[in-house]
Amino acid sequence: MSTPITRPITLGLIGAGRIGRVHAESIMRRLVGAKIAAVSDPFGDAAQRCATDFGIPAAHQDHRALLDDPAIDAVVICSSTDTHTRLIIEAAEAGKHVFCEKPIALDLAEIDRALATVERCGVKLQIGFNRRFDSNFRHLHETVQSGAIGTPHLVRITSRDPAPPPIAYIKVSGGIFLDMTIHDFDMARYLMGSEVTEVYASGAVLIDPAIGAAGDIDTAVITLRFANGALGIIDNSRQAVYGYDQRAEVFGSAGAVEAQNKTAHNTVHSTATGVQAAKPLHFFLERYMDSYVAEMHAFTEAIQNDTTPPVTGLDGRAPVAIGLAAWRSYREKRPVQINEFND
Amino acid sequence: MSTPITRPITLGLIGAGRIGRVHAESIMRRLVGAKIAAVSDPFGDAAQRCATDFGIPAAHQDHRALLDDPAIDAVVICSSTDTHTRLIIEAAEAGKHVFCEKPIALDLAEIDRALATVERCGVKLQIGFNRRFDSNFRHLHETVQSGAIGTPHLVRITSRDPAPPPIAYIKVSGGIFLDMTIHDFDMARYLMGSEVTEVYASGAVLIDPAIGAAGDIDTAVITLRFANGALGIIDNSRQAVYGYDQRAEVFGSAGAVEAQNKTAHNTVHSTATGVQAAKPLHFFLERYMDSYVAEMHAFTEAIQNDTTPPVTGLDGRAPVAIGLAAWRSYREKRPVQINEFND
Amino acid sequence: MSTPITRPITLGLIGAGRIGRVHAESIMRRLVGAKIAAVSDPFGDAAQRCATDFGIPAAHQDHRALLDDPAIDAVVICSSTDTHTRLIIEAAEAGKHVFCEKPIALDLAEIDRALATVERCGVKLQIGFNRRFDSNFRHLHETVQSGAIGTPHLVRITSRDPAPPPIAYIKVSGGIFLDMTIHDFDMARYLMGSEVTEVYASGAVLIDPAIGAAGDIDTAVITLRFANGALGIIDNSRQAVYGYDQRAEVFGSAGAVEAQNKTAHNTVHSTATGVQAAKPLHFFLERYMDSYVAEMHAFTEAIQNDTTPPVTGLDGRAPVAIGLAAWRSYREKRPVQINEFND
Amino acid sequence: MSTPITRPITLGLIGAGRIGRVHAESIMRRLVGAKIAAVSDPFGDAAQRCATDFGIPAAHQDHRALLDDPAIDAVVICSSTDTHTRLIIEAAEAGKHVFCEKPIALDLAEIDRALATVERCGVKLQIGFNRRFDSNFRHLHETVQSGAIGTPHLVRITSRDPAPPPIAYIKVSGGIFLDMTIHDFDMARYLMGSEVTEVYASGAVLIDPAIGAAGDIDTAVITLRFANGALGIIDNSRQAVYGYDQRAEVFGSAGAVEAQNKTAHNTVHSTATGVQAAKPLHFFLERYMDSYVAEMHAFTEAIQNDTTPPVTGLDGRAPVAIGLAAWRSYREKRPVQINEFND
Repeated sequence: MSTPITRPITLGLIGAGRIGRVHAESIMRRLVGAKIAAVSDPFGDAAQRCATDFGIPAAHQDHRALLDDPAIDAVVICSSTDTHTRLIIEAAEAGKHVFCEKPIALDLAEIDRALATVERCGVKLQIGFNRRFDSNFRHLHETVQSGAIGTPHLVRITSRDPAPPPIAYIKVSGGIFLDMTIHDFDMARYLMGSEVTEVYASGAVLIDPAIGAAGDIDTAVITLRFANGALGIIDNSRQAVYGYDQRAEVFGSAGAVEAQNKTAHNTVHSTATGVQAAKPLHFFLERYMDSYVAEMHAFTEAIQNDTTPPVTGLDGRAPVAIGLAAWRSYREKRPVQINEFND
Repeated sequence: MSTPITRPITLGLIGAGRIGRVHAESIMRRLVGAKIAAVSDPFGDAAQRCATDFGIPAAHQDHRALLDDPAIDAVVICSSTDTHTRLIIEAAEAGKHVFCEKPIALDLAEIDRALATVERCGVKLQIGFNRRFDSNFRHLHETVQSGAIGTPHLVRITSRDPAPPPIAYIKVSGGIFLDMTIHDFDMARYLMGSEVTEVYASGAVLIDPAIGAAGDIDTAVITLRFANGALGIIDNSRQAVYGYDQRAEVFGSAGAVEAQNKTAHNTVHSTATGVQAAKPLHFFLERYMDSYVAEMHAFTEAIQNDTTPPVTGLDGRAPVAIGLAAWRSYREKRPVQINEFND
Repeated sequence: MSTPITRPITLGLIGAGRIGRVHAESIMRRLVGAKIAAVSDPFGDAAQRCATDFGIPAAHQDHRALLDDPAIDAVVICSSTDTHTRLIIEAAEAGKHVFCEKPIALDLAEIDRALATVERCGVKLQIGFNRRFDSNFRHLHETVQSGAIGTPHLVRITSRDPAPPPIAYIKVSGGIFLDMTIHDFDMARYLMGSEVTEVYASGAVLIDPAIGAAGDIDTAVITLRFANGALGIIDNSRQAVYGYDQRAEVFGSAGAVEAQNKTAHNTVHSTATGVQAAKPLHFFLERYMDSYVAEMHAFTEAIQNDTTPPVTGLDGRAPVAIGLAAWRSYREKRPVQINEFND
Repeated sequence: MSTPITRPITLGLIGAGRIGRVHAESIMRRLVGAKIAAVSDPFGDAAQRCATDFGIPAAHQDHRALLDDPAIDAVVICSSTDTHTRLIIEAAEAGKHVFCEKPIALDLAEIDRALATVERCGVKLQIGFNRRFDSNFRHLHETVQSGAIGTPHLVRITSRDPAPPPIAYIKVSGGIFLDMTIHDFDMARYLMGSEVTEVYASGAVLIDPAIGAAGDIDTAVITLRFANGALGIIDNSRQAVYGYDQRAEVFGSAGAVEAQNKTAHNTVHSTATGVQAAKPLHFFLERYMDSYVAEMHAFTEAIQNDTTPPVTGLDGRAPVAIGLAAWRSYREKRPVQINEFND
C-alpha cells in the first residue's frame, strides 16, 4: 500500500450479504482514502442494518439510487453471482467504476458482453480475487517475477476449506471448480505469470454424500499445463478439520518459493506428549481480512491515479473458462484444452 | 476483544508526538466503540497536524481544554515521561479516567503520589504495557495460567531493538533498564504471575561508545528471582540488525511454552545457497500495532463495564522499581532485593 | 529396529556397483547381526575392491560361487536391472533368501515368473524400497495406520532429485516413471494402505533437451486414484538446485500428517538480509543411509524369525505396473486403469 | 570427518560402565580406522560383558594390562571421575595417548599435575566434550568463526535434562555446575572463542527436595562475562518433561545464529485440536551418538597426523574452574572472577 490516497473516493455498495458486509467493515473501519456513501440491498432491511452497523450514511433497496448519485465514483458489487453482469453493465453505463466480486458469471458469453460494455464506457473494472493481496501470495508472486527461482517449472497449490458450504449454495454455485477452485485457478495464473492452456481434473465425494447428490464433488485434484510449458497441481478439499489450509509453492530452475499457512500466534507448547503449535487461521475472514483492505486500496488507487486496476476483467474471465474446462475434464475423463472454450 | 462496546467512549489525547500519533491512528482507524474528540500538544502545530491527519474534531495547545470538556470520558496521556504524574493527577482531579504511557515516572515516590490521587478520585488508570495484548504473549500468559506447563520454574525473555534510539533520548530516558527492559520486567511479571523479588544485572557497551559516554549500556543480561521461587532471564540489545527480536519462553514442571518472532509473511525461498525465510517484523509499529488497538479496547471496555483495567497503576509501578534495582545491581555488582526500594 | 538379531545371518552380495557398495557399507559398518561373507561382480576388480574397502572375506567374479556356498543364508542383488529376475530365480532355486534392489524388472510377465519361482522354492524375497524405512515416512505410515487422520482422502508426494542422472542411464532405466517415480508409487501405496487403480501422467522437458532427445521427460505431475476412493498427486523434477526434495503429506477426514525435508543441522542464521536455514540433505546417500541399514535389519530379522519380509514381491511388482501405466497415460494423453496391465 | 584414517589406531578402553559402553559401541560399530583391542574394568564381569557385547578381543580387571600392551596406541578413560588424573598420569608415563571423559577432576591442582605429566611425556590428550562435534553446535561455531554474525555480543545456552540423575550420583558428582553445566561452560567457550572471566550463578530447588537435601540445586541460571567483553547466559533444569532440551544462540553485531533441538523425524500432524510435532530427541544417547563417533574420529586422526587434538587439556580444565566459580558465586551471592581460582 505504497501510494497514499490523496483524493477521497466515494463508493456505493451493492449487496449487503456476507461478503458485502466484509467489504463494508474493511472499507469503513480500515481503509484510508475511501468511504461508502450508500448501500443497497433488495432484501428486507439488510441495507439498513449494514448502514447502521458500519456507519454508512444512506441505505436503499434499489441499487439505481446509487447509480443515479453523482457523488458516487464507483460501485462495489457484492450481490449474488447471477446479477453480476447485469449490474456491471448498468453501472458502466451510468459512468461508475466497478469492483465486482468473483466469479463475474458462470457463462463466458455473458462475461464477454459485460466486459465489452465496460470497455465501451471507459470505466475501470476490478475483480475480487483478494488472495493476490495476501502478504504470502504477493511475496511468492514477487519472488517469481524477480527471477529469484529462475524459470518456473511447476506451481503447486493446496486449498482446503474448514467446512463445506450449505448444500443450497452448492446447487447454484457452479460446483467446486467454480465456487472454490476458481480462486486457485486465479492464483495459478498470478503466480506463474502465464496462461493455463490445458486442465485435467479428477475428483471424488469423500466427505458428504449429499454433496454428490447435489451434483458436486468435495475432494479434487487438478493438473494444469501453462502456455510457458510449465505444469501445475491444485488439490482441494471442502473439509480440513484443522482449519483453512492455504498454501502454495512455485518451483523453478533456480529454486523454489513456498508459502506456509498463517496462524493466530507463533508459539509452541512442549509437553511430555509432543510439541504443539497453532492451527491455521480458521477461515477466510481470519486469514484474508488484510487482503480485502489491500485490494480495495488498490482499486481506489487505480481510480485516483487513472491506472489499470491490478485484477482486470480478463483476469476475472480466465478462471471461469478454466473452471468450465475442469468440469468438462472431470465428466469426460480426459484432459481439456482451454481453447475449446475460447473459440 | 470479546465484549462488544455498546456505549461510545469519548477520549482526549494529550501529546501528539510519535506514540501519541500511534494511538490516534489505532483509535481513529481501527478501534470500534471509542473516538478521540480532541487532541492537545503544547509544541507548535503538532496537535493540529494530528487532528487533521486522523480526523480528530478539535486541537488545542493546552491540555486543560480537554480536562474541562464534560463530553470527554477519559484521557490518553502520551506526553513526555516527566509530565506523566502531573497530568495523571490533574486528570484524576478533573474526574477523567486515565490511560498513561509507560513508564509512569522514573521516581517511585512520585508514582505513589499519582496512584494515591487516582485512588482518591475513584477514576480508572491503565498503563500502556501494550505487549501484554500481543497475540503471542497473551497466548503464553493464558497457557501458563491454565496450568498447561505445570508450576513455572523459569521465564526467558529475549528483547532486542533493531537500532539504538538517539543519544539525546538515552540521556533523559532513564537508560536501558527504564526505557527498554521495563517492557520485559512487565512481561516477566505478566507471564509468571508472580512478583520479582531480586534482580542481578550485567551489561556492556558493545554497539556504540557514545551510548556509554551518555552513561548507558547497549547490551544487558538480567537475572530475576520471583516470589514463587522461580528464576528469570532477560537479554537485551539495542541493535539486532535482522530486526525487532521479541521472544519469550516459560518453562515449568509439566512443559514449556515459547513465542517465536512474527514475520510479514510465512514463506521460504530455497536456492542453491540455502533456505531463506522472512526477518522478524522490523520494529514496534509493525509488530505491535494490533496490540495498541487491543489495549485501548480493553481500556474503553473497563470504563464501559466499570471494571478494573487489565494493567493497573501498581502494574505500572513494579517495573520501575525493578528497573531502579537493576541499575543499582549493575553499578554495585551485586544482586539487589526489590524490597530495598519498597521500604 | 525393536527385535534384537540373535543368530548372525550370512549374506552374499551380488553386484559391487554404486548401490552394492552402499549396502556393503551399511551392512559391514552399521548393521548388527548380519555380515557379508562374499561379494561377486563380473566386471574387472569391482568385487575385490568392494571386499577390501569394507572388510568382506571373499570376492568372486561369478555369483554362482555365492549360490553354491552353503554358509550363505541370503543374497543381496544389486546388479543391473536386466539381470534381476534371472538372479532371483537362480538364487531361489539354490535355496537362498533374496533381497533385490528395485525395480525387479521392467516387464511384468518377467516379474511374475520370478515371483512364481520364489513362491515355489519357499524362500523369502524383499524388494529394496528403502524409503519405507526412513523415520519420516515410517512415522507418516504409522500415523495413518493408527487412524489419527481418520479416513485418508489424499496423498501428496513431492520427490525431486538434486541433478539428473547421466543420459546413458536414462536410455536404459525405463525413464522417469520407472527409475524415479517408482519410489513414489511405492510410497503412495505404503502411505495410503490401498492399491492404485488409475493413473494420469503429464510431463515436460524443462531442464535439459538431451533428456527429451533420449525419449524421457524431466518434470512430471501424476494423479492417482486408489481402490479406497482416495486421490493422490506426485510431482517430480530431475533437478532441484537446493537439494534432494523428499516430502509427503496424507490428508484425511480427521486431519493431515506431513513430512518435511531433513537437514544436516537445525540452525538458523539471521542477518540484515534474511533468516537462512540449512538446505535439504543433498541426495540419497545423505538422506537415506539410515533407511538402508533399517531395511536390511528388517530383512535379516524376517529370515531369523521366519516371517514375511515387510516389502514383498508383490510390493515390488505393483509400482512397475503403475509406472508402465503412467507412460501409457503420458503417451496417449488419457487416464489409464492399472487393470489394463493386470489382465 | 574429512580426512580418511589410513593407519588403524589401536585403543584400550578403561572403564566399562555406561559411558564406556557408549564409546565401545561407537568405536566398534561406527568408527572407521580404529578399534579397541582390550577393555578393563575392576568391577565384577563388566569388562568381559563389554568385550562380548561389542566384539572386543580382550578383557581385564586391571587397566595395567592395557598400559603394558605395546600394541595399544592410546587409552580411552571412562572410569569414575575420581580416578581420572591418576589414570591419565599412569597412561602418559606408559607412553599412551589419552582420551579422557569429562570432567578431568573436580580439583584444579590435581588437574594441573595431570596436565604437567601429559606435557612432560609428550603424549596427546583429548577431553570428552562431545557436544562440540554435534552438527548443530559445530555449525554455530563455524558460523561465528567465519565472521558471519560480526563481533559476538552474547551467547545464550539452554540445556535441560529429561530427568534428574540418581541422588547417589549427585552426592559425588560435584553438583549441577560440575556434572551438567560443565558441558555448557565448555560450549560457551567453544562458541564465543573467548575465555570466561566472571560468573554469576543463581539457582533453586524446584523439582525434587531430595536434590536440595543432597546439597545440590536442580534449576539454575548463570550469567557469564567473557574476556572479549561479551556476555553469556546459561539456563539449566534437571527435568524437562518434553525431552533433552539442547539449544544455543550466538548474537553479534552482524546477526545471530541459533541451534534448535533435533528430533527423530520432521513431521507435523494437524488435527482439530492443533498442529503436533515431534519432541526433542530423548537424551544424550539419541541426541549425541553421532558426536561420540566424531570426537573419537578426531582423536584418532590427531594421533595419526601427529597434530593437537581439538579439545585439549586446558579445554578440560577451564570449565572446571568456571564450575567452581559458579558454586562460589551461588553460595556467596556475588559475581566471582575466574581469576580467583587461577592464582
